[in-house]
Amino acid sequence: MEFLKTALNKVKRLPERGKYDSDTIYPILDAGLVCHVGFVQDDQPFVIPTLHARVGDQILLHGSQASRMLRHLKAGGSACLTVTLLDGIVFARTVFNHSINYRSAIVFGRGQAIEGAEAQYEALKVFMERVLPGRWDDTRLPNENEMKQTTIVALTIESASAKIRTGPPKDDEEDLSWPTWAGVLPIQQIYGAPIADPRQQEEVDVPEYIRSFQQQKPYV
Amino acid sequence: MEFLKTALNKVKRLPERGKYDSDTIYPILDAGLVCHVGFVQDDQPFVIPTLHARVGDQILLHGSQASRMLRHLKAGGSACLTVTLLDGIVFARTVFNHSINYRSAIVFGRGQAIEGAEAQYEALKVFMERVLPGRWDDTRLPNENEMKQTTIVALTIESASAKIRTGPPKDDEEDLSWPTWAGVLPIQQIYGAPIADPRQQEEVDVPEYIRSFQQQKPYV
Repeated sequence: MEFLKTALNKVKRLPERGKYDSDTIYPILDAGLVCHVGFVQDDQPFVIPTLHARVGDQILLHGSQASRMLRHLKAGGSACLTVTLLDGIVFARTVFNHSINYRSAIVFGRGQAIEGAEAQYEALKVFMERVLPGRWDDTRLPNENEMKQTTIVALTIESASAKIRTGPPKDDEEDLSWPTWAGVLPIQQIYGAPIADPRQQEEVDVPEYIRSFQQQKPYV
Repeated sequence: MEFLKTALNKVKRLPERGKYDSDTIYPILDAGLVCHVGFVQDDQPFVIPTLHARVGDQILLHGSQASRMLRHLKAGGSACLTVTLLDGIVFARTVFNHSINYRSAIVFGRGQAIEGAEAQYEALKVFMERVLPGRWDDTRLPNENEMKQTTIVALTIESASAKIRTGPPKDDEEDLSWPTWAGVLPIQQIYGAPIADPRQQEEVDVPEYIRSFQQQKPYV
């Protein structure tokens, strides 16, 4: 699916880096562990980091009943949701051509309440399965009281774009002889070795689904 | 310095995680390689990832003349700037107590133009020295044409807060016997080995300032 290029989502600076198809945008959204959600209240912008899970053209967000962001989205408020994956620092021969290798996705949309206890429960399960696959079935599931304290909302993706930079520095020919090191310092996100809870009552092996999760790059 | 706790910056959810002193907030801002800047245009929120450099109670942001965000800030527009450092995934025995270990800082303020070619040049130098210490003196400095394409603005910090979670899962006593693995999967950001530009004309060693930069954790 191709998003319509409008004033809203058009990449103005370096337009050749802009992408508008869901095949490019959605994998970036899915690779990020957290996103940053921007919304407006009384003319004031807020930017809140939070976990997210995309399901089709919707993004699930969850948290506490008290969350300003979730109450805004629950009431149908609009938001901008951004996921940024950093891949490296680009050292050029010129100050001007220094850059960052990155993949970012920016989504515009409106919130939508998920109505009813059952639908909330199902949405929370889907959310958790996306963020931490395999975990839901291995834990004590939420009780009524815990569900009452939890809100889960959907953000419907109405417009979106991605911006990507890859590769070495792009200095002009006449700068290539400048006597400095030029290249890329890659940025990597990794998971460290799991640290068991000191209150663990019996020794339990780290489950296979966490081991395989650990092999991923946890882009933040 | 302690920021006044107001409706704007007050941490509503889990208030015990909220911090309002610059000694807590500023190191989080400084540790992040990128921030996410939220601003409003025609009632529409935008969230843009960008490099940043704090100098006292101001944050420098730079980019192209064409940048919507920089033009907004240059004109004195207000913004919310957020830095998020992810430290780990907290696996609890209950779905409800799953969490993330993180440090986030949220800043509210207004943009301010940096007037004049000389001041722009000085600000760019300060910006680069903060982001990539040692690099400025080792590269071809910006010429007039490059400076014309570059904008640098200051965001004055008017209000701010930080939110921090550390440590193991916080399950209730009655859940401790649940037979699952509980603990923390640490998240680490590292720099990989430098990759030289294929167009490098003569072999140049990776300079010491990049080597020592590489030892840092590039929180994103």
